[in-house]
Amino acid sequence: MAGNTFGTLFRVTTAGVSHGPGNVVIIDGCPAGLELSVDDLLPDLRRRRPGQSKLTTQRDEQDLPEIWSGVFEGKTDGTPIAITFRNSDQRSGDYGDIKDKYRPGHADFTFDAKYGFRDYRGGGRSSARETVSRVAAGAVAKKLLARDGIRVLGYVKQVGPLVAHVPDPTAVTLEQVEATPVRCPVPETAAQMVQLIDDVRMDRDSIGGVCELVATGVPAGLGEPVFDKLKADLAKALLSLPAVTGFEYGAGFAVATMRGSANNDVFAPPEAHESPVAPDAADCNATVWEPKHGPRVRTESNRHGGMLGGISSGMPIVCRAAIKPTSSIPRTQRTIDRDGRPTEILVKGRHDPCLLPRFVPMGEAMVALVLVDHLLRARSSKLSS
Amino acid sequence: MAGNTFGTLFRVTTAGVSHGPGNVVIIDGCPAGLELSVDDLLPDLRRRRPGQSKLTTQRDEQDLPEIWSGVFEGKTDGTPIAITFRNSDQRSGDYGDIKDKYRPGHADFTFDAKYGFRDYRGGGRSSARETVSRVAAGAVAKKLLARDGIRVLGYVKQVGPLVAHVPDPTAVTLEQVEATPVRCPVPETAAQMVQLIDDVRMDRDSIGGVCELVATGVPAGLGEPVFDKLKADLAKALLSLPAVTGFEYGAGFAVATMRGSANNDVFAPPEAHESPVAPDAADCNATVWEPKHGPRVRTESNRHGGMLGGISSGMPIVCRAAIKPTSSIPRTQRTIDRDGRPTEILVKGRHDPCLLPRFVPMGEAMVALVLVDHLLRARSSKLSS
Amino acid sequence: MAGNTFGTLFRVTTAGVSHGPGNVVIIDGCPAGLELSVDDLLPDLRRRRPGQSKLTTQRDEQDLPEIWSGVFEGKTDGTPIAITFRNSDQRSGDYGDIKDKYRPGHADFTFDAKYGFRDYRGGGRSSARETVSRVAAGAVAKKLLARDGIRVLGYVKQVGPLVAHVPDPTAVTLEQVEATPVRCPVPETAAQMVQLIDDVRMDRDSIGGVCELVATGVPAGLGEPVFDKLKADLAKALLSLPAVTGFEYGAGFAVATMRGSANNDVFAPPEAHESPVAPDAADCNATVWEPKHGPRVRTESNRHGGMLGGISSGMPIVCRAAIKPTSSIPRTQRTIDRDGRPTEILVKGRHDPCLLPRFVPMGEAMVALVLVDHLLRARSSKLSS
Amino acid sequence: MAGNTFGTLFRVTTAGVSHGPGNVVIIDGCPAGLELSVDDLLPDLRRRRPGQSKLTTQRDEQDLPEIWSGVFEGKTDGTPIAITFRNSDQRSGDYGDIKDKYRPGHADFTFDAKYGFRDYRGGGRSSARETVSRVAAGAVAKKLLARDGIRVLGYVKQVGPLVAHVPDPTAVTLEQVEATPVRCPVPETAAQMVQLIDDVRMDRDSIGGVCELVATGVPAGLGEPVFDKLKADLAKALLSLPAVTGFEYGAGFAVATMRGSANNDVFAPPEAHESPVAPDAADCNATVWEPKHGPRVRTESNRHGGMLGGISSGMPIVCRAAIKPTSSIPRTQRTIDRDGRPTEILVKGRHDPCLLPRFVPMGEAMVALVLVDHLLRARSSKLSS
Repeated sequence: MAGNTFGTLFRVTTAGVSHGPGNVVIIDGCPAGLELSVDDLLPDLRRRRPGQSKLTTQRDEQDLPEIWSGVFEGKTDGTPIAITFRNSDQRSGDYGDIKDKYRPGHADFTFDAKYGFRDYRGGGRSSARETVSRVAAGAVAKKLLARDGIRVLGYVKQVGPLVAHVPDPTAVTLEQVEATPVRCPVPETAAQMVQLIDDVRMDRDSIGGVCELVATGVPAGLGEPVFDKLKADLAKALLSLPAVTGFEYGAGFAVATMRGSANNDVFAPPEAHESPVAPDAADCNATVWEPKHGPRVRTESNRHGGMLGGISSGMPIVCRAAIKPTSSIPRTQRTIDRDGRPTEILVKGRHDPCLLPRFVPMGEAMVALVLVDHLLRARSSKLSS
Repeated sequence: MAGNTFGTLFRVTTAGVSHGPGNVVIIDGCPAGLELSVDDLLPDLRRRRPGQSKLTTQRDEQDLPEIWSGVFEGKTDGTPIAITFRNSDQRSGDYGDIKDKYRPGHADFTFDAKYGFRDYRGGGRSSARETVSRVAAGAVAKKLLARDGIRVLGYVKQVGPLVAHVPDPTAVTLEQVEATPVRCPVPETAAQMVQLIDDVRMDRDSIGGVCELVATGVPAGLGEPVFDKLKADLAKALLSLPAVTGFEYGAGFAVATMRGSANNDVFAPPEAHESPVAPDAADCNATVWEPKHGPRVRTESNRHGGMLGGISSGMPIVCRAAIKPTSSIPRTQRTIDRDGRPTEILVKGRHDPCLLPRFVPMGEAMVALVLVDHLLRARSSKLSS
Repeated sequence: MAGNTFGTLFRVTTAGVSHGPGNVVIIDGCPAGLELSVDDLLPDLRRRRPGQSKLTTQRDEQDLPEIWSGVFEGKTDGTPIAITFRNSDQRSGDYGDIKDKYRPGHADFTFDAKYGFRDYRGGGRSSARETVSRVAAGAVAKKLLARDGIRVLGYVKQVGPLVAHVPDPTAVTLEQVEATPVRCPVPETAAQMVQLIDDVRMDRDSIGGVCELVATGVPAGLGEPVFDKLKADLAKALLSLPAVTGFEYGAGFAVATMRGSANNDVFAPPEAHESPVAPDAADCNATVWEPKHGPRVRTESNRHGGMLGGISSGMPIVCRAAIKPTSSIPRTQRTIDRDGRPTEILVKGRHDPCLLPRFVPMGEAMVALVLVDHLLRARSSKLSS
Repeated sequence: MAGNTFGTLFRVTTAGVSHGPGNVVIIDGCPAGLELSVDDLLPDLRRRRPGQSKLTTQRDEQDLPEIWSGVFEGKTDGTPIAITFRNSDQRSGDYGDIKDKYRPGHADFTFDAKYGFRDYRGGGRSSARETVSRVAAGAVAKKLLARDGIRVLGYVKQVGPLVAHVPDPTAVTLEQVEATPVRCPVPETAAQMVQLIDDVRMDRDSIGGVCELVATGVPAGLGEPVFDKLKADLAKALLSLPAVTGFEYGAGFAVATMRGSANNDVFAPPEAHESPVAPDAADCNATVWEPKHGPRVRTESNRHGGMLGGISSGMPIVCRAAIKPTSSIPRTQRTIDRDGRPTEILVKGRHDPCLLPRFVPMGEAMVALVLVDHLLRARSSKLSS
């Protein structure tokens, strides 16, 4: 129960640290027969990779996956898929100063408190380097989901005070997201964000933001009624990523000031040739879908973010994660050393001034892992006829 | 994997619906030797109970627990603790109208979509009635935590636009929380909240809010580095409760607009006779603590909410959950029936106009369950000397 | 991880001891829509019940189940099924002597060693009383399996030196098993067993035996290739029952003296109107079945007990459990007390002189739980088309 | 739930097939601070390796492990340990014939039935090649157990009709076991076994046997009362290995013919300077041990195999596994092809005529994994003082 496995039926176990030999992931529970090769993993791995632009750290990981098992003659064979990533860039000198000092905002101290010592060559196991495994697993999950018409897409919703106005989250395309280095699909806001991040970087500081994640095509009925509500598993999935400090779905924290009469979404029959028009994230319409049980239904708004009682409603799933500003900033900060004495630290190395652009594929991966897991779970609970 | 069990080492399994014979919980993994009786469960069960004030529904559940097992001669004996609650008040007539119509904001439709039919006598398994089991289990968890000096306390932070200013979350007492029916420890704000909720009720509407949860005395080192980060398990725990639409800890969503230089908490040695004074939730100081490994450490502020890298830092854990306005409002609302035809529905029955007051013990229970689980997990991972 | 839950998708959690208020079981993961009532549980509960004949203890438990949840309008509704059994017969005086002495063959000492104290009113949690929960859950599992044409049946194969010769295990009927109090389907052997057990009882002693369990109609493909082999899960299931000291399937321990050329079963196409004739347990033919993948296949013999590589082959699953003689015998035995001093003990109370007859429904229940779990698991792993 | 993970707190996840790129294992839950290097893994890996003698297949796997993570500066760091084994010897031509035919006794057919196709280059995932991962994990487990004075040792007890008489299983040493290629500690029997296996090999056949596994130094109190009894987890562990068809502990199947008065082991106080003398496996005396709770206790005999009520008693744990004769024999056998047509098959390749010698380290590994898991579980369930 050291917490390195995620999921119940589609299970992902990861190992590896930022500055060790490499990272390893075993994906257990992928059904047999899915066409799969390294090429399926590369696009999202590239999106996660450092060094894509001046907005992201220039650390040059090749992130080249090797598939050790689970694929036979181009298809998954039902046995576990093991993938390794050899760490190629381990400039040990860059991190030497943190051996005996606790970087503010980092897990240096808590690892010491937990284990008695730690891998001081970098973030170790708490580094975002570990997410290379998640993104690879997420790529497999996305390919499975695509067979059921489910798509997961994320984008940067907010950086600092700059909030992107996305009229219909379900209409955003991968191309729009990838069109700018900041992964915000609204070009004007994206340009402002790029400028802001560059300013922050010049100021030797960092900045936080919000990532919005949207899943379309999710059938009604995914999620379990009590502890494993879909919203609960999504929250855990996203909070398990480094730097995430908050999660909300649908109207989210805005519900605090709302009245029930304004928050409840009205159920309605689907319109013919319905064209979804939604003013903003929490109000998007969905395309029409066909549930296995009950009538065809839509809601006139989507403040419920696609989940009612923790179970998918068939409307788009819309959720958001808050990401804190990078803890590593190229400034001298006060801290203490391992002996508890006050000191100063200047964290070297190359660090993203804003984590948001590279967070997008990580967030998508976690959402995809949750959805594919619940899809398999839903399948297992059917009664034989 | 139908999701009715929570926790890994301290495992809680619940069964039961709102209008069936009763609710059942099995608590597995409670160490032997803890003094335990029904009396230990009653205080929190009373806090959760409907009918405490005009702010809460008048449904009169006795919530009287019966312990079937796991306690011998007044102490837990290491075997699973089974507790039942017989449902005493099942006025079936009250819910008849929802049999064939989907209540907006409720899980009626998603249950139909998932299972093909549903227990239409009320919320069924999605009802907050199920939380009676969680609160009982949480009471056991709290008693275990108390042995380690850990306290979990929640209070209402916000109702509608009214936000309580709590200078030091760790200084709030249970007595302060229980002093008002709205469970807000700031008397003036509490009075305003009571008035607002009463206004909303008179307006046949409901209102949302935010609950803040604080755990003090948590040693550094709880939480697992990757998927089972303490923050991730807390997020799942709270989002698994009905009506919760968001989770944040420490600075939470406010990090989006912050810079790293402002967000990072500075590590510092503990001061002698330090008196914690903190301006607000995310900035509270902690009392000094002694980690098992490494030096005695505090942070000068607590924007990290007591968790770094998903592992407890020894500072107070501070998190918040957003709760939506009660979906059941005594108004006619548009919806559709099970055949997909537009109709109207007037939800009868007695419903809280604001869920916040009764949410407090539920939220505390879930936080306590997470903490005790990670406490046991931490214990299991020690090396023999 | 206190081990009170069994199964992965069809999960059974039990609580309760022999002399406490009662026993509780929560069945999680039963698909919605199965017709279920107390009447479905009673037949197997009656078979497990003490006091059926002079072969079994006269302790008079009513074993009347109460279903608290999970069934709505006569059908399972997808939510967890909680069932309680109130202990009706708690003559505390019968067990007083064991409070401070360790009964030979019992778990008194090991419970003390594990927990520091124990419920001394009887076997406590290690008593076979707990199996009332398993048998109830097994009855639900059997009903689910029946929808897929799978039948699980056990019988007494051996008592002391008396071994029943069963030409075709798959041809044994429930009626044959229930025709004699010893649950051996071969009348002559059954009569001898009854006599032997009566002799043993008169001799104030007890006797061991072997139970054979047969599952027919199991489709090929159940079981997971590595750790969760079907044979492994069956072994665990049966060894988790009290008094079981061994497990084997197919040829079992007899393989030790066999050569590969004699042990390998030959694959063959199914014959038309094939009439299965098998000399004995490990050699029975199966009825013809239709796998989802690959050709229709049978093996000419069944020394592999219906499992190859830990995965069901479509041939009947045949396994056996060794059950030790009842540890409680009405004789004075040497032992020590809780202070480690030598003493003598005379275990009072009513105890079966042979556990085998009542073991049959317990063994069936565990086999059924394993099969239904793997059936649901197999379902979850299909690729969407 | 595809079953590629074993254990609850000390969790082992494996991936890889016999003829793919390699095998991968992730060990999660190893406490931090254990000195560990590749050298700790090599001895048991060598014992498992093919080609050690003419008794074992000459397939030349180097079995050289690479540790990717979880070890920092020579010690485990609390994060998951990933180890890979690159498959070095993949003569694909050897296995070509089995692509379209089902080998008797193998999992070819059941894999086809389960997945619709299979890796036909060898045993694939059902090959004993996968046990390289288990043996590596077992070596880590053994090293952890050694810190608590627990030793696990196995040996060949029986090959065909030849049964080794081992007066005191706890007195057997690793040196004795390794002294002969057949891993039987009784030299005369070992010589006969070697001759028998050679005869069988010359006869182009194979032979089965029994492996006995002994754990000494196990403290009383390991194992959970109900489903996760220590005996149940050991049974699952051993049956999860290829070719195992039976499990028994202590007196095992011999209990069937025993009376309670003869089977019950008498509790006794430990003698001063006690010298254990035991006639045979199920009757060995134990060295004296000190439980955490209750008095110092031994039993005068050990027919209970060190477990009472599924919980360790402090006496040596003694169990046995039946291993079938190698299914691959260099003879033409009748079978069918993938189209269901009768045909013949001659399985090529190099195969052990008797699996027993190489089984010993595999069996030890599984026993060690179970014990270390329960050791960690026991630790987690203590009450804070």
